[in-house]
Parts: sequence; C-alpha cells; structure tokens
Amino acid sequence: MPALRQANVSDHGTLVECVHQWWGDSRTPEQARELSLLLPRLFLQFFSGTSLILEDGTDIRAFLIGFYAADNDTEAYIHFVGVDPKLRGQGIARRLYTAFSQRAAEEGRTEARAITSPMNAGSIAFHRAMGFSLEKGDREDDGLSVHTSYDGPGQDRVCFYKKIAL
Amino acid sequence: MPALRQANVSDHGTLVECVHQWWGDSRTPEQARELSLLLPRLFLQFFSGTSLILEDGTDIRAFLIGFYAADNDTEAYIHFVGVDPKLRGQGIARRLYTAFSQRAAEEGRTEARAITSPMNAGSIAFHRAMGFSLEKGDREDDGLSVHTSYDGPGQDRVCFYKKIAL
Repeated sequence: MPALRQANVSDHGTLVECVHQWWGDSRTPEQARELSLLLPRLFLQFFSGTSLILEDGTDIRAFLIGFYAADNDTEAYIHFVGVDPKLRGQGIARRLYTAFSQRAAEEGRTEARAITSPMNAGSIAFHRAMGFSLEKGDREDDGLSVHTSYDGPGQDRVCFYKKIAL
Repeated sequence: MPALRQANVSDHGTLVECVHQWWGDSRTPEQARELSLLLPRLFLQFFSGTSLILEDGTDIRAFLIGFYAADNDTEAYIHFVGVDPKLRGQGIARRLYTAFSQRAAEEGRTEARAITSPMNAGSIAFHRAMGFSLEKGDREDDGLSVHTSYDGPGQDRVCFYKKIAL
C-alpha cells in the first residue's frame, strides 16, 4: 500500500511532470500547460507542511496541495489534487482528503474548502460523496450552483465547503 | 497622492481586469491570459492581510500580492506586483515593496523573496535597485544567474532575496 508523507519543495518538478502525464490523455497540450500553471513552485516552497504526497516506493502516485488561510483561523484550503489514473477508483483521493482534514482539524481549523470547474463532473461527484456542500453562486446550471468568472473572465467555478471540527 | 490600503477579496475581479489592461500593450492576449492565471482568487481570499492596494479615489492604480511562508517563520514572499503604466517611474513599486517589507519585518519576518522571468529586464533592474540579491541558479545567462525550469518545463526564473529585519 502506498505510503503518505509530507510534501517537500524538491517534489515540485516531479509533481509538474505528473500533472502533464496524468492529464495528458484527456486534455490538449495547452490545457495541460494551463493546469501546470496552477502549480507554481511557491506552493511547495512555502506550504509543504500542509501538503501531502502518496508514494509507492520512490514513485509519486498521488498528491494534495493544501494550506491554511492566513486571513483567518478557521479555513483549510485544498488547492490541487492529483491521482495517477492507474490508481483511480481505489479511494486514494478520499485518503488524501481525510488525512489533510484530520491534520487541519488537529491544528484548530474548522472548515475545509475547495473549488472546481463546473465542467468537472467527477470532481463535483467526489466532493459531494465526501460530504462537502456547495456554496451558493450567482447562477444555476442544471441544478448546479455556479460562481461566474470566479477566477477571472470565463473562469467559472463551483465552490465546496465542509465542517471538519474534531 | 494615491492611498495605500490592505487588499480585500472583493478586489479580485478588478485586479484581474487591471492585469489585462496594464499588460495588454506589451503581451499577446495569450500571454496576458497566462499572467492572470498567476492571480487566482485564492491569494485575495486567504492572504489579503499581507497584500496591498494603491488607490486613487476609487481607482486601483497599483497592487502587491504577498504572503508569509507557512513552512517557516522567516520568509515573506512577494508574488505579484502591478502598477498602472500611466504611473510608472514615480516610485510606486518601491512604495509598495517598502510598505510590505516594513509590515513583514514588524511581524518578525527577516527575509523578503520574489522571482521573475530572466527576460524581464525591468523587474531585474528594479529588484537590484531595491537592494535584492540574486540567488545562485544552475546556469549563467550574460552574467545573470538563472534557475532553469524553476516553475515547470521552460519556466525559467531569476530568484531574489533581501534581509528585511528591523
């Protein structure tokens, strides 16, 4: 069974490679490149203590990049999660979310937050299954509450939150 | 004289517009779009307390997005700075950097860090003028120490640091 460990800044190059490989099938090269722009080194450089790596021997098979809000004492934010497609359906993402939330709760955080694209049905189903609620947006798409241009023009998002108090 | 204030999550949409406008002349639309990907809402949502806005009446004329490392007690990081081209050459960026560094030092941070592209001669000259040193990279380009693929494949960076202890 793959082992969970804290992330390190030296993981960054490998994680970017993982993103390119793991999403390579389902996205255009341009989309994969945009995805990797969501993962600048700074997240590993300054927030590795709250980020997790799942390793099988020396191979990274999944990761979770997360941090705690500096503006308040309550929120823990899951920024980016990746799972090797070969390991999908084995509860790996659930394991990462659970470990992150457990640690965050132990540090006094009371709410986990995450966002995704309204097109990402898999991510939406996953967050619902994990007990996340959807934050009300400014419009409804087929019953899905969406925040229009949340991350910039055309960058619509669905916003999740969940109480994680111990 | 424009007034400095703390950033707020509600500034995000305007800041993204500013980036598109202010860099619109010198970059392709694709490059401007990539720039705005460096500014997801999360920085305003979770790190507004360390980010600064320079406002002239109700118009944002400049901003600095920065935060303190969670992994250590020493580093303060300047992630993204923008100045309205109409106000360039007036010491606005210097004012933002000085205010950020002063606040960071008051909070016990002892080192400011920032990065830029090796192509960005203006930014490199600015950081040198502000007293930043260049962190040694893995290669030299015309006397400039560069970190190859620092932020992913082809994303070379120059890395700056400066002591900011009071």
